[in-house]
Amino acid sequence: MNISALLTSSGINTAVCAVLFSLYSILRKQPSLVSVYFGQKLAQVRSKRNDPFWLQRFIPSASWIVKSWVASEEELFATGGLDAVVFLRAVVFSIRVFSVAGVICLFLVLPLNYFGKEEHKHIRDEQLSVFTIEDVKEGSRWLWAHCLALYVISSCACILLYFEYKSITKMRLAYITASHSHPSHFTVLVRAIPWSQEESYGVKVAKFFTDYYSSSYLSHQMIYHSGAVQKLMTDAEKIYNMLKSNSMDQHYGSRLLRCGFCGGTSTSFKILSPEPENGRTTSCLDSPDLREKECGVALVFFRTRYAALVASEGLQQPNPMSWVTDLAPEPSDIYWSNLYVPYRIFWIRKIAILVAFILFVTFFLIPVVFTQSLVHLDKVEKIFPFMKDITERRFMKQLITGYLPSVILMIFLSIVPPIMMVFSTLEGSISRSGRKRSTCIKVLYFVIWNVFFANILTEAAIDHYQDSIMKLGDPKTIPNQLAKAVPSTATFFVTYVLTSGWASLSCELIQPFPLLYNSFYRFILRNKDDSSYGSYTFPYHTEVPRVLLFGLLGFTCSVLAPLILPFLLVYFFLAYLVYRNQILDVYVTKYQSGGLYWPIIHNTTIFSLVLTQIIALGVFGIKRSPIASSFTIPLIICTLLFHEYCRQRFHPVFKKTPAKTIIDMDREDEHSGRMEEIYQKLPSAYFQINSESRSLGKSLELNCPEIQANSRETGNISRLEDLETPGKMSARLP
Amino acid sequence: MNISALLTSSGINTAVCAVLFSLYSILRKQPSLVSVYFGQKLAQVRSKRNDPFWLQRFIPSASWIVKSWVASEEELFATGGLDAVVFLRAVVFSIRVFSVAGVICLFLVLPLNYFGKEEHKHIRDEQLSVFTIEDVKEGSRWLWAHCLALYVISSCACILLYFEYKSITKMRLAYITASHSHPSHFTVLVRAIPWSQEESYGVKVAKFFTDYYSSSYLSHQMIYHSGAVQKLMTDAEKIYNMLKSNSMDQHYGSRLLRCGFCGGTSTSFKILSPEPENGRTTSCLDSPDLREKECGVALVFFRTRYAALVASEGLQQPNPMSWVTDLAPEPSDIYWSNLYVPYRIFWIRKIAILVAFILFVTFFLIPVVFTQSLVHLDKVEKIFPFMKDITERRFMKQLITGYLPSVILMIFLSIVPPIMMVFSTLEGSISRSGRKRSTCIKVLYFVIWNVFFANILTEAAIDHYQDSIMKLGDPKTIPNQLAKAVPSTATFFVTYVLTSGWASLSCELIQPFPLLYNSFYRFILRNKDDSSYGSYTFPYHTEVPRVLLFGLLGFTCSVLAPLILPFLLVYFFLAYLVYRNQILDVYVTKYQSGGLYWPIIHNTTIFSLVLTQIIALGVFGIKRSPIASSFTIPLIICTLLFHEYCRQRFHPVFKKTPAKTIIDMDREDEHSGRMEEIYQKLPSAYFQINSESRSLGKSLELNCPEIQANSRETGNISRLEDLETPGKMSARLP
Repeated sequence: MNISALLTSSGINTAVCAVLFSLYSILRKQPSLVSVYFGQKLAQVRSKRNDPFWLQRFIPSASWIVKSWVASEEELFATGGLDAVVFLRAVVFSIRVFSVAGVICLFLVLPLNYFGKEEHKHIRDEQLSVFTIEDVKEGSRWLWAHCLALYVISSCACILLYFEYKSITKMRLAYITASHSHPSHFTVLVRAIPWSQEESYGVKVAKFFTDYYSSSYLSHQMIYHSGAVQKLMTDAEKIYNMLKSNSMDQHYGSRLLRCGFCGGTSTSFKILSPEPENGRTTSCLDSPDLREKECGVALVFFRTRYAALVASEGLQQPNPMSWVTDLAPEPSDIYWSNLYVPYRIFWIRKIAILVAFILFVTFFLIPVVFTQSLVHLDKVEKIFPFMKDITERRFMKQLITGYLPSVILMIFLSIVPPIMMVFSTLEGSISRSGRKRSTCIKVLYFVIWNVFFANILTEAAIDHYQDSIMKLGDPKTIPNQLAKAVPSTATFFVTYVLTSGWASLSCELIQPFPLLYNSFYRFILRNKDDSSYGSYTFPYHTEVPRVLLFGLLGFTCSVLAPLILPFLLVYFFLAYLVYRNQILDVYVTKYQSGGLYWPIIHNTTIFSLVLTQIIALGVFGIKRSPIASSFTIPLIICTLLFHEYCRQRFHPVFKKTPAKTIIDMDREDEHSGRMEEIYQKLPSAYFQINSESRSLGKSLELNCPEIQANSRETGNISRLEDLETPGKMSARLP
Repeated sequence: MNISALLTSSGINTAVCAVLFSLYSILRKQPSLVSVYFGQKLAQVRSKRNDPFWLQRFIPSASWIVKSWVASEEELFATGGLDAVVFLRAVVFSIRVFSVAGVICLFLVLPLNYFGKEEHKHIRDEQLSVFTIEDVKEGSRWLWAHCLALYVISSCACILLYFEYKSITKMRLAYITASHSHPSHFTVLVRAIPWSQEESYGVKVAKFFTDYYSSSYLSHQMIYHSGAVQKLMTDAEKIYNMLKSNSMDQHYGSRLLRCGFCGGTSTSFKILSPEPENGRTTSCLDSPDLREKECGVALVFFRTRYAALVASEGLQQPNPMSWVTDLAPEPSDIYWSNLYVPYRIFWIRKIAILVAFILFVTFFLIPVVFTQSLVHLDKVEKIFPFMKDITERRFMKQLITGYLPSVILMIFLSIVPPIMMVFSTLEGSISRSGRKRSTCIKVLYFVIWNVFFANILTEAAIDHYQDSIMKLGDPKTIPNQLAKAVPSTATFFVTYVLTSGWASLSCELIQPFPLLYNSFYRFILRNKDDSSYGSYTFPYHTEVPRVLLFGLLGFTCSVLAPLILPFLLVYFFLAYLVYRNQILDVYVTKYQSGGLYWPIIHNTTIFSLVLTQIIALGVFGIKRSPIASSFTIPLIICTLLFHEYCRQRFHPVFKKTPAKTIIDMDREDEHSGRMEEIYQKLPSAYFQINSESRSLGKSLELNCPEIQANSRETGNISRLEDLETPGKMSARLP
């Protein structure tokens, strides 16, 4: 690929981007598309834009860019949560690091590379490889400049990483401290409750926790098989309608409903109506049928956050596969479907998923190899002579080498995140955010392996087609192979940044799938109701790996092929604007992980740095510069030590919550008297219903306002102590 | 090596063993050696053997074998603790598995190997390799027998492992439950207390724990730099003597002493003598000098075991590198020297030790390669022709190939455990048992790599001297290399079992070093006092890896070269007798890890099994038996799944203590009223003195019996609440 091909490619991409960005600035002003582009603030925007004669709406404008630029971090935190802030910090970190890298590499390294050889063609026909380290002569005195650049970039990255980690750790602690009303702090999810013939799960839970956590146990809520909840909901609705039509006391109906879907304990019904006033109703809801549908999973509420934390961290029983406790996710974050699955099969599921993941990643190499072979059309032509006829035309050739490979790769890659999401679901995550994070890690491994390594190895394989391909797997030759292949693969990576990077941002902005769905919904189905259109959460599982992959490409190519840096910087600037806009306007924040994406970002960046250094070591070795080589080794060691230090200093806060923080929060709430209020809200915090029954529940609640009031009042009567096992109580500690 | 060389070797070894065992049976009856052979029960035995005319003592006898055989597991548990029982269980497990393996391999596999080729020499001159799988023809129909044997051995091992793990988990729980009076259950070791100018560490600890653990905090004890304690001891002694000579109130002196070495809180002195009756004494002991010598490390005592467990498991502070809490080891188990080292440097020390360990293991290959080259004398002769002159004599050759290599290797290996112990010490273990366990793991890695893999790879390298040695590192050829090399290295392993195994047991029995030391002490120094002779604890860090290495050799050779099994079985039988005898008579049990060696044993056995299966897979591949190969793969998968199941089901109990167990213990003690007694004993449980000052302390205590009484009484007055920060208390939780 030569300079003109690169210019063609970047011209096409810039044009496409400009068109799409303008298109977006028009589309976002259309009243009919508010639901697509303003999911976040549907309510505020609608009023103004409803005027059909407001003609400005068809003129492109840059107002969204300005708005996105001026938004403060507090605003972003308020709309997108900590995860959004962390994600944008990663983008800002990349901008900072690659600005420094850009300055040093473009003004110091690039000229050295270019003037490494004396003979040069006209700049327009120059191959891109003259800008890479390939062009520097063996044993050149100028390699110290590359080494220096490597030092500057590495230290700059480490310093920035340190301060980011520090400030994000602080933000995470502040996030925990600020979330005073979160019910999840008081709640422990207990799984794998052992089954016995005599007692139901609910009774067992009550016994166990009143026995061993008597001073802090508040109440619990059993989880039912999803079918059971559905049935209960339907039954409740039937009964409610029946009672209503019979003009009976509505108040009584509201009590019945709590039992099923407002999430009291399984036996709260008994407390609320100790003497069955209506025999049939009782038998319907408190039947042994329902008990059989209990899942062996319960949410247990504690009096203090600290007690819940302690109960969630320890090992409860001598059998570690029973009474498994975890801190419960937030109500909106909990992933109910996985709670119905027996805990004992998760360990084998995890292994199966691991194997499936490895196989998937391996066999995905086939499309990647095909893609990469298109870039090296001249080399492929030698192997398959019939290709020559197609590629004789100049334009065709430029299109095929400059654009097509990345597009094909992108299409193949777009099916990966859904598959990884399925894998993560099967693995048994109990929270949506945990599932998304697990998917994020899988996608990250996938793209690093399949975009970065696979391309490089294919390059190496094609280059050495005469040698045996088998040699590639040899671990001792890998650094050398990498050192040889990375500079020459850099060409592909530049086009990858142009196509996959820039195009993905335009795509992200335009939101083609929601747009199509919206049009279909509006023009084919002729439905005008905006509210029924589902809103999306931010796709961290695809965007975090994307940004990190570009970071990896940037680091590894920076010193060896600095020409990638300007394109990358443009990408990160656009990403900064686009993602801020999307977070502010489009995506809703239903749940968040509380900054748990940062350790992933940190570790990947360190990995990228070390890989860059190892590749540079290999290149310096090939170029016979022992001084540069020997100066690189201490750099690798220092980077690894820095990583280990960060792991010791910051990472534990992302795994465990500090006792001090939690105890201080408990104390503050106790002093201010907020505790009682929290206790009352707790038992009604978790709704075990899916979206359909939720809307059913809503309509029921609208019909009978007592439900809402009632569900708040009855919260703390449902403690199980005084139920069923009064004899047991004598054994409890004072 | 042929049959007669093997017979020579085993003859020499049997004779040596018999002589040494008889020698032992005589030596152990000598009254002068009681301290060497009866460290465990010095007291009981001495009375009888003091008769100098008891002539039977010079006649060899088998009484010790009988005694060792009939001892029950309870006796072993009583004398050697849980670790001894676990270790002997590993030996018994090996006997069981290799009995089964021996039966199936000697009667099914061995004949098939031997009759694999038709032509045979006279049995006496037969090379040992005819008994290995090398002798089976390619594509032989009889390879299913090897596969069957592999299945039988693997399933037998897994079933036995499962039941052992189950019963040892139970024993560990019983061990925890039985140890009612252990002060460690109530104690948390706090390290990395942050330094500040205004407050001493002691005050900080008191504030922190009264603030955040007000309901369960009992008292604490600061750790002083060792020099400080020494000085304090000397000061205390001086003062004590002074007070005594001045005929002052002895009672007062006893109070002073508590402050320094009987382990009250740093400020307990103040409580005990609020008004300084003697100005000079106060300034000497409560000087700011002493405060400066506090280490930033404290032992914190709690009211319940559960509270201590909770405090030790959680993260205390937002900065994970300060206020690091661990459950304290037993007083006799605690490793004081490492407490003086600042916590913040351990992470970097651990990395340094890891690097040093890897370098050490790598460079140790040199003596191993030298050793192995002696076994293959004929091949070495080709490379170094001058060797021929030496090896022309038949006896010399047999000696060199059959005996010398193992002896040299043994000598080199004997220096390894002390070096590993130094490594583990530097790593920063807080307990002696933890240090020994860490050493055990290091020695295990060492022997598996340097005895097993290094020998096999050297074998492969010598065999393919014409090929490039560089090829060895190629990961794809490793299974094949192993498959080729293991059967032919089996010869060496047989001699290794004979020499290293049998000889090490004789050595263990005779105890040459203590014997020499004792003789030196008795005949050169002319000292007759037995009690001054130091007693040893069981060297798990050398014996566990030894037994596991022989297990690995047994598994890997069983199917491929079954001739090793009889020798191995003899080894394990002898080991069973010898180790039981040693545990009952020789070693004292000062500290124990509570069965934490079992996970190491389990994991290593699984590793051996899987390695065996992989090697067998390679061999079946080489012998072109696709059916046997394809039957081996599910076996590997099943073994790995079994391992993962055990890790899920049993291992957590070895990492964390179950809350239920601990709470039940607390409750029992509270009901029986034992709690108060325990509280009184707690503050005096941990003595921060080394052996010299301990004896000094003893002599002081003997002189003034009030100390003992006093130290018990003052235990629970030392709570810090009412000290220095009375204003702070209002902020505490009710």
